[in-house]
Amino acid sequence: MITSASNPRMKVIMQLNKKAKTRFEQRVFVVEGSKMCLEAPREQIQQMYVSESFLADAKHRQQIQNYSYEVVSDGVFSRISETKTPQGILCLVQMPKYGLEDLLSQSPHLLVLENIQDPGNLGTMIRAGEGAGVTGVIMDKTTVDIFNPKTIRSTMGSLFRVPFYVTEDLQLTIAELKEKGIAIYAACLDGQKLYDEPDYTLPCGFLIGNEAGGLSERTAALADVRIRIPMEGQVESLNAAVASALLMYEASRQRRQRR
Amino acid sequence: MITSASNPRMKVIMQLNKKAKTRFEQRVFVVEGSKMCLEAPREQIQQMYVSESFLADAKHRQQIQNYSYEVVSDGVFSRISETKTPQGILCLVQMPKYGLEDLLSQSPHLLVLENIQDPGNLGTMIRAGEGAGVTGVIMDKTTVDIFNPKTIRSTMGSLFRVPFYVTEDLQLTIAELKEKGIAIYAACLDGQKLYDEPDYTLPCGFLIGNEAGGLSERTAALADVRIRIPMEGQVESLNAAVASALLMYEASRQRRQRR
Repeated sequence: MITSASNPRMKVIMQLNKKAKTRFEQRVFVVEGSKMCLEAPREQIQQMYVSESFLADAKHRQQIQNYSYEVVSDGVFSRISETKTPQGILCLVQMPKYGLEDLLSQSPHLLVLENIQDPGNLGTMIRAGEGAGVTGVIMDKTTVDIFNPKTIRSTMGSLFRVPFYVTEDLQLTIAELKEKGIAIYAACLDGQKLYDEPDYTLPCGFLIGNEAGGLSERTAALADVRIRIPMEGQVESLNAAVASALLMYEASRQRRQRR
Repeated sequence: MITSASNPRMKVIMQLNKKAKTRFEQRVFVVEGSKMCLEAPREQIQQMYVSESFLADAKHRQQIQNYSYEVVSDGVFSRISETKTPQGILCLVQMPKYGLEDLLSQSPHLLVLENIQDPGNLGTMIRAGEGAGVTGVIMDKTTVDIFNPKTIRSTMGSLFRVPFYVTEDLQLTIAELKEKGIAIYAACLDGQKLYDEPDYTLPCGFLIGNEAGGLSERTAALADVRIRIPMEGQVESLNAAVASALLMYEASRQRRQRR
């Protein structure tokens, strides 16, 4: 049993929780909690750690009976955990590696993100995206790290199932998507079309920008159509995750009806 | 200028930020930031406080030239602020008092919440609700306080514009709404109808439950129809604010098209 927080492996976990740089150097991220750990693809799990008191529970022991794991004292576990009341189970998981082509199924339905800053928003978008049946999520480099512990938590497991791609050059990637016949719709406050007007049963991608500033003009200009979500009252904008969900679910609704 | 954090009025602000009980005893809540303070209805503003450095900016002085305010040292301001990087402006605002009838316009479109726990979710729902044109938001007593600083912040000003009502007895209120001819739709994972099937151009209300557990069976049983948002992949549920927004915007979409 690991009883010291200065154990080198415990130190690595603490670093992986804090630093995107460490995560990308090691190509590993941390997931916490039974649900997330048990949903992680087995072949990607590098190591599982459980706390003493987690293991004291027979139901828990049964859950992980087919896994190899290491036991950590409760005190040390609270140090390696990112949550206030840790469940007592945590895994190091290898980063999946998708290419852009993995996101382009027969009928692409993409979420394309520029400069999203709130980790919870990003996670919520990925979760809603899986629900709406997106074929993938594309992020630019300025978007918050998808392996941030808060993002992982708010995906509720969708992280393991929705293909994603971080592009070094968003403009170039958008051009590539358009070449492949994917219509790009930019969510803009001044969009010329309402969000429920275009035909999303065809290959499509939704461009969503930063929570405070929206899309950069340079990126929005690349879209085929600028769309807007009508807002009553004096609302200036919607939460970015809410706006994304409305667009992705409008595509889902259309695809369901015309199936 | 107030230079001591032990000034009794500063202490009250700190309490108002922390305790729902204090807020309801005094029927006052705290809003922070230029946008929120300037959007607060003038007649409800009880007191405005600005920091020294806020006031040092000519643009800021102009913004508040028609307000009476008190100046607080930067050190004290950081104590009464709930944010890490305070803007330097804060108001005490009297709670608005709505009756249930204030939420029932000619064509009611209501969001009815049971046991929502995340203040950010509640605020996001109210913001999306204003955008979707809801006529009001009803909350049960177990829902997080609408005047929680995090809720206020995430409403982005919609708090001042969307009528709301906290009911002592949700079941009774639902019965009252039904008597008035408002159709009640419960968002349930096992809903028998898809969320885009019913006609929401008629008076309607959407019942949304707790983030983790959904609606209580007792409450869901009172609905006229249980509806579900279809989910692809292995998603078990959507974020509560996302689900609310999808329902409210479906009503908005239908009402727009049949106008």
